[in-house]
Amino acid sequence: MNDILKYIDDNKNRYMDELVEFLKIPSISSDSRYNNDVLRCAGRLKEYVIDAGIEDVRMIETEGHPIVYAEWKGAGENVPTILIYGHYDVQPVDPLNLWTTPPFEPEIRGGKLFARGTADDKGQMFSHVKAIEAYMKTKGKLPVNIKLLFEGEEEAGSSNLEKFIQDNAEMLACDAALISDTEWFAEGVPSLCYGLRGVQNVEVTVNGPNRDLHSGSFGGAIDNPLNVLCDMISSLKDKHGRITIPGFYDNVLELTDVEREGFKTLPYDEKAYCDDLSIESVNGEIGFTTLERVWARPSLDLNGIYGGYTGEGSKTILPSKATAKISMRLVPHQTPAEVVEKIEKHLKSIAPPTVTIEFTNLHGGTPVLVERESKPVDAAMTALEKAFGKKPVFMREGGSIPVVDQFRVVLNVPSVLMGFGLPSDNIHSPNENYSVENYYGGIKTSALFLDEMSK
Amino acid sequence: MNDILKYIDDNKNRYMDELVEFLKIPSISSDSRYNNDVLRCAGRLKEYVIDAGIEDVRMIETEGHPIVYAEWKGAGENVPTILIYGHYDVQPVDPLNLWTTPPFEPEIRGGKLFARGTADDKGQMFSHVKAIEAYMKTKGKLPVNIKLLFEGEEEAGSSNLEKFIQDNAEMLACDAALISDTEWFAEGVPSLCYGLRGVQNVEVTVNGPNRDLHSGSFGGAIDNPLNVLCDMISSLKDKHGRITIPGFYDNVLELTDVEREGFKTLPYDEKAYCDDLSIESVNGEIGFTTLERVWARPSLDLNGIYGGYTGEGSKTILPSKATAKISMRLVPHQTPAEVVEKIEKHLKSIAPPTVTIEFTNLHGGTPVLVERESKPVDAAMTALEKAFGKKPVFMREGGSIPVVDQFRVVLNVPSVLMGFGLPSDNIHSPNENYSVENYYGGIKTSALFLDEMSK
Repeated sequence: MNDILKYIDDNKNRYMDELVEFLKIPSISSDSRYNNDVLRCAGRLKEYVIDAGIEDVRMIETEGHPIVYAEWKGAGENVPTILIYGHYDVQPVDPLNLWTTPPFEPEIRGGKLFARGTADDKGQMFSHVKAIEAYMKTKGKLPVNIKLLFEGEEEAGSSNLEKFIQDNAEMLACDAALISDTEWFAEGVPSLCYGLRGVQNVEVTVNGPNRDLHSGSFGGAIDNPLNVLCDMISSLKDKHGRITIPGFYDNVLELTDVEREGFKTLPYDEKAYCDDLSIESVNGEIGFTTLERVWARPSLDLNGIYGGYTGEGSKTILPSKATAKISMRLVPHQTPAEVVEKIEKHLKSIAPPTVTIEFTNLHGGTPVLVERESKPVDAAMTALEKAFGKKPVFMREGGSIPVVDQFRVVLNVPSVLMGFGLPSDNIHSPNENYSVENYYGGIKTSALFLDEMSK
Repeated sequence: MNDILKYIDDNKNRYMDELVEFLKIPSISSDSRYNNDVLRCAGRLKEYVIDAGIEDVRMIETEGHPIVYAEWKGAGENVPTILIYGHYDVQPVDPLNLWTTPPFEPEIRGGKLFARGTADDKGQMFSHVKAIEAYMKTKGKLPVNIKLLFEGEEEAGSSNLEKFIQDNAEMLACDAALISDTEWFAEGVPSLCYGLRGVQNVEVTVNGPNRDLHSGSFGGAIDNPLNVLCDMISSLKDKHGRITIPGFYDNVLELTDVEREGFKTLPYDEKAYCDDLSIESVNGEIGFTTLERVWARPSLDLNGIYGGYTGEGSKTILPSKATAKISMRLVPHQTPAEVVEKIEKHLKSIAPPTVTIEFTNLHGGTPVLVERESKPVDAAMTALEKAFGKKPVFMREGGSIPVVDQFRVVLNVPSVLMGFGLPSDNIHSPNENYSVENYYGGIKTSALFLDEMSK
């Protein structure tokens, strides 16, 4: 491995120059005015992969932006095949005036490379391309078989990815997936994410009288749908912050002592957490810490609510209906299908007979737990430690990465969430940046991971 | 009085023709495209008053539409002065396609005169003008002194009326006010309204984190302002429908046994009430009937609520703030000032320390109770009975008529709410109408009332 790591060190400047060139292409996938740039970005990415030494690279059309797909099978049948996923598209850049330097004119300041897409996800994805290059230029081959799946629609909802995976399951067959699109717990704390929460969003509408009524003539005599909705929502959690939907916790996998102890060793600062949000204190399910709550406990929150008069001043009405959008974050082994059934049944059961309920299942995503005692996770932990010189920590995340569950369901493989981002990267915000150290370290980690997987 | 009542009978057709002409003027006060029509309507009204025999009629300009004001002081100092209030402006007519005949082309069908403004309030107001005419043409004088105050902005918020009353308190000095802008309890049930609820509208905003947060990253760890708002709202009533704000009922005047017994004799049909609203059943404060709840008990309702994402589908956010508009209907002797202080204090006291509260006092109106044992009320009851041949009932209303409290506070006089509308009049809606029988009966009632007041 020393040759390879040396090659990476020797080519640092060029690696940075190439990433900067790649970042200059404004591949904003959700804005059709940038369609040509997204296409140009895919073409440039294809060239980088070819330059890295992989000849079989294809731009595959979808109904949206193309997928860049590559294969290298030269390692033979006795070593694993790794599917590396990344996305070359980026978020929009508004509000532009808050950027210190223009989003598509990358600049290094204070050890960080500033530009849209640096951390999310061009910089992280590029690490793998450059690691492959280092391997190919040094050894003429890779230690494992590789498939690269780079999509151009992640920031626009990945509308065509699931179908692509389903339609091409045989082509994508592999032993493990590798995704670098997550963050470390903190700067200087190499981290491996092994769990993601799922989600189930629903909408509930309470229908009362057949028309808006005068609050003077009717106030006090009938159930007001807005008040009923508030009562119903309020009853969904008890005073201990526990969700009251019957059976909601049935399939919740409790944290192990090892996990809880591990979380406690992380450099979490509750005061800084609150200060950042300008709140006095956190609050949540009794008996759990903040990290446990957001990583490993289900939640139920309103995303939105509306009903009645919402303009300036007042209007003397009792509204005929009221609607709430409810988002539940799920943890292993809850499933969206199970939870949606339970909340629908419960909401209908607690509604008073004076109203009727309309219920809509908006969308769901399955929670993810990667087996910590597994070869890909061991390989990632070893690679991180060797590359950064520190024992990495295990962490989870509260959000979802839908493709992980698609890989699990369709390809029947685990995903290793080996990211190099930092909480200060400002992804999706102005002044997105990526640690220069983590960029280089990420390239080395990727190379070391491939080596470990070959053992 | 027989001469006068005979005059009214003899002139029925002309009285109807003149009302029809008056109704043809589209005096929609809230729509500036009709400003010329409102002005024309005021001018026509002035002529009708002059034709009735009152020469001192003025069109008084305001910052909005003019007030038509008239005085007749010929009855001398030993008889009372009655201030008659009405409004010559009307509601908008949308949705136009739901009108059977055009709103400004009056037509009689089935004993009802259909047109915008028939019941609210041109037809009712006109009764008094025509009663005065009958008196003047028959007797050459009125039995009491009269002041007429007809405004043109009632359907646009009466923006300039309160200031006008305050600025002209001396001119408006009187012994009682007479207002015909209310409804009977039911068709064929002559009714006198002796109580109106007041109102206090407020707005409360719950502020949480300093920005919208990702529901995956933060869901479960912090108090969501929308959920907090629902909890707070829900706690404002107990399971018996009683409002939990400390001291809220302190100044509530309990119904007397006479009042409760009186309400029970009214032809109220709860099934028809529910069917009209398409609801299964009523619901409200325990221990009270529907009529008691809407007429004589305070209420607390949401008029509107908003916060977070309210578009199609879902958005994975915890909103940074949430707002509710709350309307409380008040009963004697609650005051808006007292109630607004109590709810503000209470909302701030129940808010958890994780959020901050913004509170806005939107507007208030004082509840009204007219002394039933009084000369003006006796006069109205007698007049109604003589005109319609039936003993009238006492009723209250759940809504507010702000001018009543202004007369009480500024002029220090009671208002008699002697209306002739019916619940089926469709005021503020398509196909507004007014009972022809009540139009003629109203004219007689007005004449008889003046006679009774002179005794």
